[in-house]
Amino acid sequence: MSIHAVKRSQCHLAWDNSIAPVLRIQSGETVTFDCLDASNGQITPDSTVDAIKSLVFSQLDQVNGPVFVEGAAAGDTLQIDVLRVAPAPWGWTACIPGFGLLTDEFPEPALMIWELDTENGVTYFDAEKKIKIPLRPFAGEMGVAPGKKGAFSTIPPYATGGNIDTKHLSAGATLYLPVEVEGALFSIGDGHAVQGDGGDLRYGVYFTPGYNCIFPGTAIETPMTVSVRLTVRKDRPYTTTPHFSTPRLSENEEYYCTTGVDADMRTATRAAVRNMIAFLCAEHGLDRAAAYMLCSVAADLRLHEVVDMPNYVVGMMIPRSILGAEEKVRSVTGGCCTSC
Amino acid sequence: MSIHAVKRSQCHLAWDNSIAPVLRIQSGETVTFDCLDASNGQITPDSTVDAIKSLVFSQLDQVNGPVFVEGAAAGDTLQIDVLRVAPAPWGWTACIPGFGLLTDEFPEPALMIWELDTENGVTYFDAEKKIKIPLRPFAGEMGVAPGKKGAFSTIPPYATGGNIDTKHLSAGATLYLPVEVEGALFSIGDGHAVQGDGGDLRYGVYFTPGYNCIFPGTAIETPMTVSVRLTVRKDRPYTTTPHFSTPRLSENEEYYCTTGVDADMRTATRAAVRNMIAFLCAEHGLDRAAAYMLCSVAADLRLHEVVDMPNYVVGMMIPRSILGAEEKVRSVTGGCCTSC
Repeated sequence: MSIHAVKRSQCHLAWDNSIAPVLRIQSGETVTFDCLDASNGQITPDSTVDAIKSLVFSQLDQVNGPVFVEGAAAGDTLQIDVLRVAPAPWGWTACIPGFGLLTDEFPEPALMIWELDTENGVTYFDAEKKIKIPLRPFAGEMGVAPGKKGAFSTIPPYATGGNIDTKHLSAGATLYLPVEVEGALFSIGDGHAVQGDGGDLRYGVYFTPGYNCIFPGTAIETPMTVSVRLTVRKDRPYTTTPHFSTPRLSENEEYYCTTGVDADMRTATRAAVRNMIAFLCAEHGLDRAAAYMLCSVAADLRLHEVVDMPNYVVGMMIPRSILGAEEKVRSVTGGCCTSC
Repeated sequence: MSIHAVKRSQCHLAWDNSIAPVLRIQSGETVTFDCLDASNGQITPDSTVDAIKSLVFSQLDQVNGPVFVEGAAAGDTLQIDVLRVAPAPWGWTACIPGFGLLTDEFPEPALMIWELDTENGVTYFDAEKKIKIPLRPFAGEMGVAPGKKGAFSTIPPYATGGNIDTKHLSAGATLYLPVEVEGALFSIGDGHAVQGDGGDLRYGVYFTPGYNCIFPGTAIETPMTVSVRLTVRKDRPYTTTPHFSTPRLSENEEYYCTTGVDADMRTATRAAVRNMIAFLCAEHGLDRAAAYMLCSVAADLRLHEVVDMPNYVVGMMIPRSILGAEEKVRSVTGGCCTSC
């Protein structure tokens, strides 16, 4: 199987079916993408919080591609097998004032630079190495060009994919996207070293009449190289939104969960996060901004209850193991216990 | 530690702080509740779909109690350690026309009676025993009386608990609820043999000026006996909604996930479920109503993406193992593999 490469510089800032492909491949071939982080290189391992204040937002969340897959036509499905995801040895997490789920409660900017132990697949949240976070790298953006003409922001997720920010799409996963244009025009980017379900809690969007005035917040953002196999499928007409299949992973965890209960789902979600922050501050001695960032990279948001009106229950679940609660049976390679 | 018992008949149909306690205990004592299923005994192992048509809705979703815990005062936290959950050897699942998340797409009533293998902790979805579902029994309702005067329906979840329908609250879990009245006034009910995250997808609510005109749909509803230890905690002032801690469980699974993408979270959720149904029909030969019920008892709804406006991504994840995809490493007793 031939291997193709897409370079760092071969990227674009909108989902737009008029953007010319940078590469043409046969169905079933593999492509390796070299992707900068979502800041498009504006943040480096030496950056301070000043870098957040001076970000050029119009350059953020680029995606690499597009790749034209021969034989793909509107109505088909593009199968994306994620073969390998290799993050850089560093990443960043930020709070950006004015944007995100709890923005009103976090008025100050903040930036964390992480050292990523890519060999052992872990990173540490604190200098004392008490809070250890297993890495689970994935590309936050994977999408195909929309059938509709025009330039669409790379920030919102769409039925054709894009910024779906789904932590389950690590190596071994398979994503299926509905094809809307000839050749599919696949692109990828937004490297995350690890993130919880629910997406990036500090992501915010500032819409202007242009398509690309957006403000990212962050998981652990990182440059990465990612290899995917792209295959045209003619036998999945029911794939009208992103579907995916995950690899087997060690998720044999104890969790601590906080909930939000409200008639408005977003208010409930905010409450679940706020309550987790209160818990982490009270029981683990974190300050609020640190707790907020830890939620974003390590905790899951789940819809526990969506149908008993008038109230929803949204849960935020954090693995107790990462809080140093006890030694855990866990493997980043997917083994279910240390003897496997 | 003394053991107390609450009988089947000692139940009530509203959260109301004026309901007299059926039992008084010391903090730290254990109570075993004998609970009928959420139909309050109207559905039996011999029922047919006619039982759905003739349900008396005003009798549904009773909870057993309330139990007065000495020393509990408003502002405290009630810790509920779930020690044992023993479902009956049968359960039921229904579609009720006119109610639930996809009610407009499911106009016909349906009823399934399940045989539960409580010894091995499994049940089968189909007569050929191809779709095997591990049981994970829990009480859908656990709550304390509200501080506010009045009778509140047992259907919606509240900050004081109630119908939180959270699958993670199986034996070994610990739930924390904020106390609003003297003695806490704890009640429990709504036995579920197994259910996914996201609650019961066919639950619907029909509000009239009264408090209790509701219509349940279902997980696998079952009578059960459940033992909990109730402890007053004075050191958790941050517990303002339900919090919980889960036992270690085998969740080392492969999933298949469908998503919904929409600016409205509920619409996105509906789409995720609709898409899973389409997948199950296309790939596993189920009919739509059967697929719908399988979603409710075996699949998880998760908030993958809640912050990249204007669209949300909601995922519905189903373990591939239950679809007979392959033999899985899994144990209902919590061991991580067959050699543990």
